[in-house]
Amino acid sequence: MALCEWVYLDGKIVAASRARVPVFDRGLLFAQSVYEVTAVVHGALIDVQAHLERLERSLTGVDLPLPMSLDEIEAVQTALIRKNALSQGVIYLQITAGDYRERDFAGSRRLRPRLFAFCQARPLIDEKSRNGVGAITVPDTRWARRDLKTTQLLSQVLAYRRAHDADAFTAIMHEDGMVTEAASANVWIVDRAGDLQTRNLSAALLGGVTRAAVLRLAEIPVRELAFSLDDLRAANEVFLSSSGGMILPVTQIDAAPVGTGKPGPVTRNIQRAYYQAVGFDVAADAPWALP
Amino acid sequence: MALCEWVYLDGKIVAASRARVPVFDRGLLFAQSVYEVTAVVHGALIDVQAHLERLERSLTGVDLPLPMSLDEIEAVQTALIRKNALSQGVIYLQITAGDYRERDFAGSRRLRPRLFAFCQARPLIDEKSRNGVGAITVPDTRWARRDLKTTQLLSQVLAYRRAHDADAFTAIMHEDGMVTEAASANVWIVDRAGDLQTRNLSAALLGGVTRAAVLRLAEIPVRELAFSLDDLRAANEVFLSSSGGMILPVTQIDAAPVGTGKPGPVTRNIQRAYYQAVGFDVAADAPWALP
Repeated sequence: MALCEWVYLDGKIVAASRARVPVFDRGLLFAQSVYEVTAVVHGALIDVQAHLERLERSLTGVDLPLPMSLDEIEAVQTALIRKNALSQGVIYLQITAGDYRERDFAGSRRLRPRLFAFCQARPLIDEKSRNGVGAITVPDTRWARRDLKTTQLLSQVLAYRRAHDADAFTAIMHEDGMVTEAASANVWIVDRAGDLQTRNLSAALLGGVTRAAVLRLAEIPVRELAFSLDDLRAANEVFLSSSGGMILPVTQIDAAPVGTGKPGPVTRNIQRAYYQAVGFDVAADAPWALP
Repeated sequence: MALCEWVYLDGKIVAASRARVPVFDRGLLFAQSVYEVTAVVHGALIDVQAHLERLERSLTGVDLPLPMSLDEIEAVQTALIRKNALSQGVIYLQITAGDYRERDFAGSRRLRPRLFAFCQARPLIDEKSRNGVGAITVPDTRWARRDLKTTQLLSQVLAYRRAHDADAFTAIMHEDGMVTEAASANVWIVDRAGDLQTRNLSAALLGGVTRAAVLRLAEIPVRELAFSLDDLRAANEVFLSSSGGMILPVTQIDAAPVGTGKPGPVTRNIQRAYYQAVGFDVAADAPWALP
């Protein structure tokens, strides 16, 4: 990953080294702050409308107004892509409750939200997409409103750190015996009957923009229903969907192989359909995803 | 409240207006960050050892090392008190996972934690201490590790905002019918038999430094055991303990009076004992707390 040189902050594009916020920012003091990560392919934002709509829902959930219109936020992102000459990677955008040189929980009613954004240039299809990744399983310790994309991400940080300690790429979280989400992706399984399943939306998980895309693109029936850790371990195939990782096969869970231990045919079909939908040339960029 | 002019950040004391951190700080991006609020009375830190020990426990819980020794952290706070000529108020101290100009969940293993601190000059005994406060009750939506003092404070922010909307001062949080904590304080009740009760320590609540002081100072038996919302509403007296608010009587809950609707004798005894213990002259600073 390479952080781009230019950052958007408080109405201006500045060098990354100058992008600083007051220590009184309520994102830093209270995590009163939401974010979006949007993929960029051939310089174009993927599913930008869905990201912006979710951003607005998240803001409402943390009692913040939009700092500018959604169209203006899209224009900020487009300007940043251009300034950084970003072809492929992600744009990260965060809105905090701003600061007013005080620290109190409730905060002023006249807070001016702060928006900043930066990008990372990196391939969105890589060896993880091709070969799959390993995951560990961990209890889901997040707060009650996981449907809001807030920066209360400590559970996920700790889950990723445990995964890396175990030589795995990520962690799959569970609660009351049921899978909720991966540390920064939605989880999908293909059961013994060949059916595709992912958890139904609720406050227990984030409604992924890529999850919605997979629902649109899947050529087989999808069951939207919570499944157990046992279902996960018994699945023929498991994959993750997220804006930054796109579609990642999971080939190991807690060091045991998933199905054959290799990415399966349903996963490959979803990858092919998704890569095509976002503008990749599958034959050139991900030939192994072709049937 | 008045924010003091000088702030400690990254090894230096700087003007508040210059205290800025990179947008890549992991406290801002991931809430990988812990804090302490320590009262200052007559220029002296109250219960500083207990705060520093909890700070170290919180850091361990979020997988961060100490950026300097606890003695050095105390020296930072003492220097800041002196520089700001702070007599009465609080010192806020936060340690984040720092930044390395990248955004990834796990973070580098070679992260350098960032420490900053600022203070607020304000009376620690005020009309809230004298007359009591109103509280609303709200579901506790926090993450699973409330025993760690992290900056994942969005539930508390939203609870305070709801309270202010209802013309109350704060919120008392509950889960499965049992009281956990107030939005930034531990909760105490005096039951019909005159016994004092507060919830036992667990991952469900923060172990308050002032809570521990009350346990030491109370002259009547204290039951450390969870109590229900019904017990809360039926209590003769309710009060809150916290470093910044010290001992605050709760005289209204969800707009209904607690007991007589006025601060009760057990609460006054605890106030008197606590104010004396931290160095106030009760006869001058809080005469209404005298028997």
